[in-house]
Amino acid sequence: MTKSLFFILIIVLLSSSSESRYLPQFLSKLKTQNNINQPIQNYTYDIKYFQQTLDHFSFNDDLPSFQQRYLINTDHWVGPSRMGPIFMYCGNEGDIEWFAVNSGFVWEIAPRFGAMVIFPEHRYYGESMPYGGRDEAYKNASTLAHLTAEQALADFAVLITDLKRNLSAQASPVILFGGSYGGMLAAWMRLKYPHIAIGALAASAPILQFEDIVPLETFYDIRESTSCFDTIKKSWDIITSVGQSASGLDHLAKNFHICGKLKSSDDLYNWLESAYSFLAMVDYPYPSDFLMPLPAYPIKEVCREIDNAPDGSSILDRIFKGVSVYYNYTGTADCFDLNDDPHGMSGWDWQACTEMVMPMSSNKNSSMFPKWDYNYTSYAEECWDEFRVIPRPTWITTEFGGHNYKSVLKTFGSNIIFSNGLLDPWSGGSVLENISDSVVALVTEKGAHHLDLRAATTMDPDWLVEQRASEVKLIEGWIVDYKQRMKSFFSI
Amino acid sequence: MTKSLFFILIIVLLSSSSESRYLPQFLSKLKTQNNINQPIQNYTYDIKYFQQTLDHFSFNDDLPSFQQRYLINTDHWVGPSRMGPIFMYCGNEGDIEWFAVNSGFVWEIAPRFGAMVIFPEHRYYGESMPYGGRDEAYKNASTLAHLTAEQALADFAVLITDLKRNLSAQASPVILFGGSYGGMLAAWMRLKYPHIAIGALAASAPILQFEDIVPLETFYDIRESTSCFDTIKKSWDIITSVGQSASGLDHLAKNFHICGKLKSSDDLYNWLESAYSFLAMVDYPYPSDFLMPLPAYPIKEVCREIDNAPDGSSILDRIFKGVSVYYNYTGTADCFDLNDDPHGMSGWDWQACTEMVMPMSSNKNSSMFPKWDYNYTSYAEECWDEFRVIPRPTWITTEFGGHNYKSVLKTFGSNIIFSNGLLDPWSGGSVLENISDSVVALVTEKGAHHLDLRAATTMDPDWLVEQRASEVKLIEGWIVDYKQRMKSFFSI
Repeated sequence: MTKSLFFILIIVLLSSSSESRYLPQFLSKLKTQNNINQPIQNYTYDIKYFQQTLDHFSFNDDLPSFQQRYLINTDHWVGPSRMGPIFMYCGNEGDIEWFAVNSGFVWEIAPRFGAMVIFPEHRYYGESMPYGGRDEAYKNASTLAHLTAEQALADFAVLITDLKRNLSAQASPVILFGGSYGGMLAAWMRLKYPHIAIGALAASAPILQFEDIVPLETFYDIRESTSCFDTIKKSWDIITSVGQSASGLDHLAKNFHICGKLKSSDDLYNWLESAYSFLAMVDYPYPSDFLMPLPAYPIKEVCREIDNAPDGSSILDRIFKGVSVYYNYTGTADCFDLNDDPHGMSGWDWQACTEMVMPMSSNKNSSMFPKWDYNYTSYAEECWDEFRVIPRPTWITTEFGGHNYKSVLKTFGSNIIFSNGLLDPWSGGSVLENISDSVVALVTEKGAHHLDLRAATTMDPDWLVEQRASEVKLIEGWIVDYKQRMKSFFSI
Repeated sequence: MTKSLFFILIIVLLSSSSESRYLPQFLSKLKTQNNINQPIQNYTYDIKYFQQTLDHFSFNDDLPSFQQRYLINTDHWVGPSRMGPIFMYCGNEGDIEWFAVNSGFVWEIAPRFGAMVIFPEHRYYGESMPYGGRDEAYKNASTLAHLTAEQALADFAVLITDLKRNLSAQASPVILFGGSYGGMLAAWMRLKYPHIAIGALAASAPILQFEDIVPLETFYDIRESTSCFDTIKKSWDIITSVGQSASGLDHLAKNFHICGKLKSSDDLYNWLESAYSFLAMVDYPYPSDFLMPLPAYPIKEVCREIDNAPDGSSILDRIFKGVSVYYNYTGTADCFDLNDDPHGMSGWDWQACTEMVMPMSSNKNSSMFPKWDYNYTSYAEECWDEFRVIPRPTWITTEFGGHNYKSVLKTFGSNIIFSNGLLDPWSGGSVLENISDSVVALVTEKGAHHLDLRAATTMDPDWLVEQRASEVKLIEGWIVDYKQRMKSFFSI
């Protein structure tokens, strides 16, 4: 069998300068983006707001409450008397409507289960802002303090409990869904709130990307070397070198069709790294427009452009042609505004600087990125500089586990699907082996970042259709088991 | 079989006035008491302090850390290479040394397991005070904000994880112990942190005493009516009636040998209620001095005094003779200082006014206390008046479960012993039936409040010896299972 894995790469905010920030992200950069390229799907829902407690674990009543947004559709719900299930997507670091529209799987399977669908938004993202708005919520460490995963899980728990009570649907089973960080939340919620949710589909959820549970290099490791890989690898030093003079920066700006002036080569680094990282995530097997309009397997296209540029093309020319697949697949952009994706405080940066400390290194031999050795001290210093906050790098595993996860999940966990596509660089931080009959790993060789959560298309390869069928079957099993359990308890 | 249950009663801070506070307590009133009557046991330990995070679930670095005290003994520990177990008592609402000395069971069984023993103190109790001291920590709602069960559990999790890391004892299994509120913490910690603790002995842990999970009357219900019961029942109205005039208060003070003036009959109520409540808790089958020096089955003695007073004794005389069994069993007190047990802010009052909202009513027919209907509105008002805090009455069950607990514990729980003595009024709020092979209830008809956690004595009845043997056997089974699991994982 031909290895079709081309390369797997992702990096965000990593530059060759050893002083720069090093905070891997999922998708948070996109939260401010207008999804103008997003096709309008046929998912209808009501938008509602729930008055939420800012601090669930302490009683500081000086803190204001806030309005948590959630999307809800009960069209297909068979109601409480038939224990109609509730499908809840664990909103992650972005606008919940954007996740809703890109998680078609949840909407599509709900009717056959007679399920209600609810998409609660994660606090501090989208419209669910404490303190009245994003600027106020993101003002400083004190206002950002309550942007944590535990608080978000408690939001979900309180919201769903209240909703069920209001609908007299206490007996309705809740199934959790989530992708990426949302998948981590789904898995953790299943572990921490088994009285609330009977199962979780955790898609592309790198719950093991903490401390030394997985090799620090797994994220940046590249599985197959190619000429494209080498070209990208060489490009960083060239950019640094060229960018050292003002005229060099002008040259780079011209080469990469940057609108206006390029202030530093770091800005260009970030722009390129964003492209590579998001390309790796959305390396889907059919044309898509999750982040940008893209062809099928876009990384292949990027490498084709890099490798097949006319003889004599410079490395920078090749790189430009490559990333244009990402930034300008439709060919309509004349120049690129680097500030489209504003830097500075973003929600995931805060989370990475507090509890989501995911140590990563890049190996000189196996990664196309500059060598990078994870150094907690400098990581912490940068967090202090940016947010005046001290990370707690061992907190997540203390709270949610991770070490010795196979034994722990086998003994104490149940009803979790960890789905991963091996094209996705985050897959190395997730659970890739079956743990037990009910904690299962669904791994697809050609899948990317939570591809399975996307709506079905006519272009879906068989393995994807099969993966989704397996997920439906497992979820069905959880619900059947649950209803039997409830019946046996009621009949006692 | 003769029903030896005499009566079961407990009430704290309940008076006949409908405006009074109504916050049931465990043992928190005792935290400021000098345990001068406490025999010195042979439990030796080191006293250590751990720098603890005040808010584990948010990142407000303006908050100070604090020193959490813990007691530790490693004399019998067989060390990390042999996976020596760690026995951890979940400190509850009082000085940890007091719990240590009254939880002899943990110390006594540790050697045969080759176990280390650790008793971490609960935040905001004993010496484990944030903000530098008790006065500062208890200053107002803002400083008390972080006195919650979730924060305390996180303290335990962080402390034990750090300790194990420092000792390279990551593989050592942790067994949790706890009585009363500490038992609730042990059970909850087992449910929430299964990756940290492999099992829990939750003694007299009323984890179901929330919302409407158990009948609100269960706490005050009396199982057998007696003349003593009737006399106590009648006494409340008499006290209220007599206490309405200044001379009446003087009369009460004289009758009850109060040192100095009696300011209101409410003070007397509280004093009597404390006696009854603590008597019910420590209605042990042998002479003890957990709270006070007391005879075996002290409630029988109380009733004997009440019932056998000379003919013509007034009800107030009889009541005084009864409570003297509690307050003056040694006969050395000339008068009683009601302020021995200072009112005002206490840790449990805060906890009851925030998350530990345990609704209780007393039934006119079945309770010896005045009829009392739980009313959340007035409860919340009183909390506002005292602390400027709004309770969250449904939070505990959202966070820890409770509704539908049989099904939830059967499916998702394991390795928990719920031990209860039916003499203990808190037993009605606990788990009294076996849930599964590994979530078991050990119920003793004649047991009182976490009697099983006490040191063995030569006076222990057979059923108590058997109960402790069952506990040891179950704990042994958890550890054997764990070691087998670890071996099978290591051998893969």
